[in-house]
Amino acid sequence: MAIATQAAPVISFLSDYGLEDEFVGVCHGVIARRCPEARVIDITHAIPPQDVSIGALVLRDSLAYMPAGVHLAVVDPTVGRPDRRAVAIRCGERALVGPDNGLLWLAAEKLGGPDAAVDVGGSPERLNPVSSTFHGRDVFAPVAAALACGLTLTDVGEEIEVSGLRALALPEAEVREGAVVAHVLRSDRYGNLILDASFPALAQVGIEAGGAFTARAGERALTGRHGDTFADVGAGALLLYMDASRMAALAVNGGSAATALAARPGAEIVLRSV
Amino acid sequence: MAIATQAAPVISFLSDYGLEDEFVGVCHGVIARRCPEARVIDITHAIPPQDVSIGALVLRDSLAYMPAGVHLAVVDPTVGRPDRRAVAIRCGERALVGPDNGLLWLAAEKLGGPDAAVDVGGSPERLNPVSSTFHGRDVFAPVAAALACGLTLTDVGEEIEVSGLRALALPEAEVREGAVVAHVLRSDRYGNLILDASFPALAQVGIEAGGAFTARAGERALTGRHGDTFADVGAGALLLYMDASRMAALAVNGGSAATALAARPGAEIVLRSV
Amino acid sequence: MAIATQAAPVISFLSDYGLEDEFVGVCHGVIARRCPEARVIDITHAIPPQDVSIGALVLRDSLAYMPAGVHLAVVDPTVGRPDRRAVAIRCGERALVGPDNGLLWLAAEKLGGPDAAVDVGGSPERLNPVSSTFHGRDVFAPVAAALACGLTLTDVGEEIEVSGLRALALPEAEVREGAVVAHVLRSDRYGNLILDASFPALAQVGIEAGGAFTARAGERALTGRHGDTFADVGAGALLLYMDASRMAALAVNGGSAATALAARPGAEIVLRSV
Repeated sequence: MAIATQAAPVISFLSDYGLEDEFVGVCHGVIARRCPEARVIDITHAIPPQDVSIGALVLRDSLAYMPAGVHLAVVDPTVGRPDRRAVAIRCGERALVGPDNGLLWLAAEKLGGPDAAVDVGGSPERLNPVSSTFHGRDVFAPVAAALACGLTLTDVGEEIEVSGLRALALPEAEVREGAVVAHVLRSDRYGNLILDASFPALAQVGIEAGGAFTARAGERALTGRHGDTFADVGAGALLLYMDASRMAALAVNGGSAATALAARPGAEIVLRSV
Repeated sequence: MAIATQAAPVISFLSDYGLEDEFVGVCHGVIARRCPEARVIDITHAIPPQDVSIGALVLRDSLAYMPAGVHLAVVDPTVGRPDRRAVAIRCGERALVGPDNGLLWLAAEKLGGPDAAVDVGGSPERLNPVSSTFHGRDVFAPVAAALACGLTLTDVGEEIEVSGLRALALPEAEVREGAVVAHVLRSDRYGNLILDASFPALAQVGIEAGGAFTARAGERALTGRHGDTFADVGAGALLLYMDASRMAALAVNGGSAATALAARPGAEIVLRSV
Repeated sequence: MAIATQAAPVISFLSDYGLEDEFVGVCHGVIARRCPEARVIDITHAIPPQDVSIGALVLRDSLAYMPAGVHLAVVDPTVGRPDRRAVAIRCGERALVGPDNGLLWLAAEKLGGPDAAVDVGGSPERLNPVSSTFHGRDVFAPVAAALACGLTLTDVGEEIEVSGLRALALPEAEVREGAVVAHVLRSDRYGNLILDASFPALAQVGIEAGGAFTARAGERALTGRHGDTFADVGAGALLLYMDASRMAALAVNGGSAATALAARPGAEIVLRSV
């Protein structure tokens, strides 16, 4: 089955390539050569270098806003290692293309799980020669372009079992001794901290809309309020809110929660009602 | 009246979202879903965070170079506050879409003033649910896309009086005691300082092509020359010139006027002939 | 002869404008106004400011991945000086547009040499007025757009001798006293150092696949191994490898060769077998 597309086929593109070099531009060129009618939407190329978990989260949370089509993602710390497969995964009318290192996993789950998968490491669509360090250009971009132009999964790779795809485990918040023990999943340019805590879990320990709470990260603890928008707390005060991806997040009005709590992705945050 | 467009409709897009996160990419996705044939031109996303004045200036000065169409702009420090309206403004064959906080004002003035305006805060084009923090994605991008695809202002919002739109006042240079008392409107990556001084005002105090002048910012004062290009002064020397947006600007040849004068946007600069 | 193009004409665009300002966005707008059907692929805009050599290398190495069409490049330290010509060069079915300061030279050579050239400094396609500092917007972008839309070289400028085009000389590695005396041509965001050393020259001094070598940069010297991928050396160890542009390069696995050797573009690196 070919991947369904809009008027013009759309490829969304996420990576950790940054914009300091020509890596992203070269991938755009490769796509335009293979599938001139495809349109590329850059989700972001500023995933922290080699951070597969953050890449997987951003991909998952962005997909709902992207047209159906091909979703190319490259965060690839083990590029060139023989045990890292290159894959294309079909989920309904969408295809995910990238390394089989967990990067595509959360997106595939959110799209209802993989329907089929192929190993594209030896794809007939690869550039020749394939470099050992830049599979975005040599493998993933041309495969994504071929799919956007109407080829099917089995045209671009060798069928593999979807059960063998690499999963990704995220930290999970727990309710413990009347507190939610959560983790920072990611932060953004404003220093807002996105957590793995669910709103039902927060309610279970008594943290509800309008109520006060403490957030402790290591030695630091701050008191804040659970509200809707930054304006619900004073300047410099801590806010717990539902962020734009509908997840629990901490912000400091006019400041940075990441700085205030000295917390980075992976850090444990203990939330308690006061 | 529908917004006039070229072969394919064009949406220009300016914001302070930066490129470190997926905010810009997600807005592109939302636009592509609503109006697949629209083409998006990113003016810049590096407006200093929440700096409405600089956003307004850059928007105003860029529009002449953009195809007629829809101009989406989001610098929105009061997002989510009930007293901040979301608007679309028609100026001739162009539409401006963004928060009603002054950001669109200078552009609207330059386009001959607003012909009509609507409040799009409750637009039928909004995504559902609307987040409290990311109206670029949930309100402004889909409204801009709908306009690009041929809808009229009244299709996407409730008519409002153009006289009620929020204006923006910029600092204004004055001639005082034989000097031009000017202000830094913005600076660029080279450290060039764009001023609110007009060339007639400079001539009035005797600063003319080829002539020497002093520029004083707080405690610092430098002597320079009024010329055409960087090569008109020696390396490290101060130049007063007409910049690419046809405004008076200060540069240091091979250096940074912003550093040399320790001056940032908003700073007062006193210019005097010598 | 008109420049051959794909389905839609493609303009690739490389510059040192950065993304902090609206310079790149404004050039996109100018192109879209002149040739609405052209598609622009941004190779990169992060060439180090005014570094013509690095711009020329990146342009040369990227072109093979870009669709045939128009290649716009602007790194222009002498903009506005009367002795710096603005040119368009035809190489087969491709056109290069930019300043005649060596920036286009390596790309033209790689494309088989220039077939024809025109001076576009007084092009009828220029914007009016032409600023003294932003020829990307006022001269190069509109000329590139006109070529993409089917105009020929002589439509957009005055014919000049290709023999008079400004060449660019790169440093060249030498074999001396049993060592390869090489230079850093460029580095990337990972701190990898791309060298002018050829693999035959390295073999000549005994540095071959799997073998050990020393790299000396000024006072610093490190021992490394010549391999294929980062995984061929331990964490923190130095690797000599063929990079994605098929050039000899130095990397530190999980680190930065640029930092480890304190070497920047232009630095001399002496490579010796051990």
